[in-house]
Amino acid sequence: MSEYIEIFDTTLRDGEQVPGCKLDSQSKLEIAEQLDFLGVDVLEAGFPISSPGDFESVKSISKLMKNARVCGLTRAVKKDIDVAAEALKPAKRSRIHTGIGTSDSHIKYKFNSTRDEVIERAVAAVKHAKSYVEDVEFYAEDAGRTDNEFLARVCEAVIKAGATVLNIPDTTGYCLPEQYGAKIKYLKENVTGIHKAILSCHCHNDLGLATANSIAGVLNGARQIECTINGIGERAGNTSLEEVVMILRQHKDLNLDTQIKSQQLFGISQLVSDRMGMMVQPNKAIVGANAFAHSSGIHQDGVIKKRETYEIIDPAEVGVTESAIVLTARSGRAALAYRAKKIGFELDKKQLDRVYQEFLKIADIQKEVSDSDLPKIIEAANI
Amino acid sequence: MSEYIEIFDTTLRDGEQVPGCKLDSQSKLEIAEQLDFLGVDVLEAGFPISSPGDFESVKSISKLMKNARVCGLTRAVKKDIDVAAEALKPAKRSRIHTGIGTSDSHIKYKFNSTRDEVIERAVAAVKHAKSYVEDVEFYAEDAGRTDNEFLARVCEAVIKAGATVLNIPDTTGYCLPEQYGAKIKYLKENVTGIHKAILSCHCHNDLGLATANSIAGVLNGARQIECTINGIGERAGNTSLEEVVMILRQHKDLNLDTQIKSQQLFGISQLVSDRMGMMVQPNKAIVGANAFAHSSGIHQDGVIKKRETYEIIDPAEVGVTESAIVLTARSGRAALAYRAKKIGFELDKKQLDRVYQEFLKIADIQKEVSDSDLPKIIEAANI
Repeated sequence: MSEYIEIFDTTLRDGEQVPGCKLDSQSKLEIAEQLDFLGVDVLEAGFPISSPGDFESVKSISKLMKNARVCGLTRAVKKDIDVAAEALKPAKRSRIHTGIGTSDSHIKYKFNSTRDEVIERAVAAVKHAKSYVEDVEFYAEDAGRTDNEFLARVCEAVIKAGATVLNIPDTTGYCLPEQYGAKIKYLKENVTGIHKAILSCHCHNDLGLATANSIAGVLNGARQIECTINGIGERAGNTSLEEVVMILRQHKDLNLDTQIKSQQLFGISQLVSDRMGMMVQPNKAIVGANAFAHSSGIHQDGVIKKRETYEIIDPAEVGVTESAIVLTARSGRAALAYRAKKIGFELDKKQLDRVYQEFLKIADIQKEVSDSDLPKIIEAANI
Repeated sequence: MSEYIEIFDTTLRDGEQVPGCKLDSQSKLEIAEQLDFLGVDVLEAGFPISSPGDFESVKSISKLMKNARVCGLTRAVKKDIDVAAEALKPAKRSRIHTGIGTSDSHIKYKFNSTRDEVIERAVAAVKHAKSYVEDVEFYAEDAGRTDNEFLARVCEAVIKAGATVLNIPDTTGYCLPEQYGAKIKYLKENVTGIHKAILSCHCHNDLGLATANSIAGVLNGARQIECTINGIGERAGNTSLEEVVMILRQHKDLNLDTQIKSQQLFGISQLVSDRMGMMVQPNKAIVGANAFAHSSGIHQDGVIKKRETYEIIDPAEVGVTESAIVLTARSGRAALAYRAKKIGFELDKKQLDRVYQEFLKIADIQKEVSDSDLPKIIEAANI
């Protein structure tokens, strides 16, 4: 029996917060509905106080969700919380996500404040949120650069005030996996009352480590991952939902799993990319156009003999219909024979040698050779 | 004093092996030259036996390189090695990279062979390569799924045969950082003669862990990282050069560093993306268009007060001229006042409140508000 990891999707909040994103209200509802089908546990729908448009959008999403808990972001400010509570009213199940910066850099330069004052504000915010909803998540912004002892004090105080989830964000994406894992472990072992709340990983990808850090987090006791479709988000983005889900699914011996319906991952990736106007690079893990494409001869030969030689995930598991065998100058005879057979040419060894020489001439010029090029290549080889 | 990590760039070999890549010979030379300026230690230029075009391109790059060692890939096949040696002849310093699959899956399904036979072929290939060049790198393909004890036997045998570098590829991108790190540690501790060779990390990004795995590798004793610009490569790609370099640069307490001139990273990323015709997603770490862009109000306010609040890397360090402050409905008063001031409007608190309300109306509709929209917004607020 695997232990359960909750997926907290923030595509429509931290993900939407990205320069160039073109999401309108209708598209947000469409994406929210798909995320609900996908099986996310919590859907962070927006930051209601930030604008009237965002308020309305959190409200509409709250009406729409059938299974996912709807969450709204606030600062540790009374009015933010009042407005979020109002926007979340129509939801069957809701969560308020409030918090404050806890690193010395944030306390000094952003708030011009002190550690004690920050704890006071944190506690007041959680208590106020608790007057509206049972489920209150607290974020200790810049936790990645907050010293563990102080972070533990903050956590204890907000658990006492009623927080049900503790979000430990690596806001600047600075942590190494070992450090982030050690931070979660420290909190798990040193915060009085930690059994009353669950720890949540919220990682950023500035150094390309968001996924690895989130996995280090759950290996050390966190039980929620905050993430976005395509890893979209401010700067280098957030943890990719599709990556953490498939890591847990592939590494069954970790005994950790989510309820995400992985067959929908490719479809929802394309939907989000299209509606946001934010493209996914071809070499994006799990959902990139090339994620299951093979063009080198050595790999193609292996995949044709047995898929598992080079592929760890069956493409169908994430909603991709077939591994692609793409012909280039780096392709070998096995792939060429495979494609030729697919379009009706059975070549014997000698024929294949001749066709392969013709093929290389075209491939060195054209880079990619498609099935429609093959008949003329085969003809040129006098077959 | 930091320990030295060699950067083995394979943009033009494993990177070029990507469906959709449109590199012509001229562009390959241009990229090779820039990689040499960037400071890569080894440049893998191609797979000479794969096609006449690739042979020529390895030969031309060999003539061109001033500092980088030029490397050519081969299978553990005599003819491959002969052809690679020929292509590398013009290089000042060269390396032959030969190897064979060592996992049970590769031995059984790809080669229909046995463990002992694979070791024999590996040793013969290294000896043959050694007859041409001093520097021979051996790859144990699918090392990620090869059991450690057998992998250690392979390593011992090829070191005896003269291998100077042992490449331990996680060919399918399956390993978790802890597993990959443990594999490197096992080899470091259990291979007789390991001091005569350096261990190299070659990771794939199928689960989004290539960067984390490579870092785990060097933390456990590897001293070379194989990587590509933009993480380009087959399927979900290879380890991103820019990410591993900047992780070591930012985490100085690891005492590991490279000789990469990081200020050139952004430029070379754009060159490779343009010449290959492979776009980089905006949320790509280090080199994405949004990597240093801030649009949420909370973050903008922080960055304006002090850059380090939300940015761990000074954009200039990687060749980006300025952090971008982008105005959207998620922006706050601080960012609005900052942009307004940049174009000549000093707003007092009351004026700012009025302008901010007008700004939100436009931002909810337009998504992004540019400097050229500001004058009419300010006018609409009757300032």
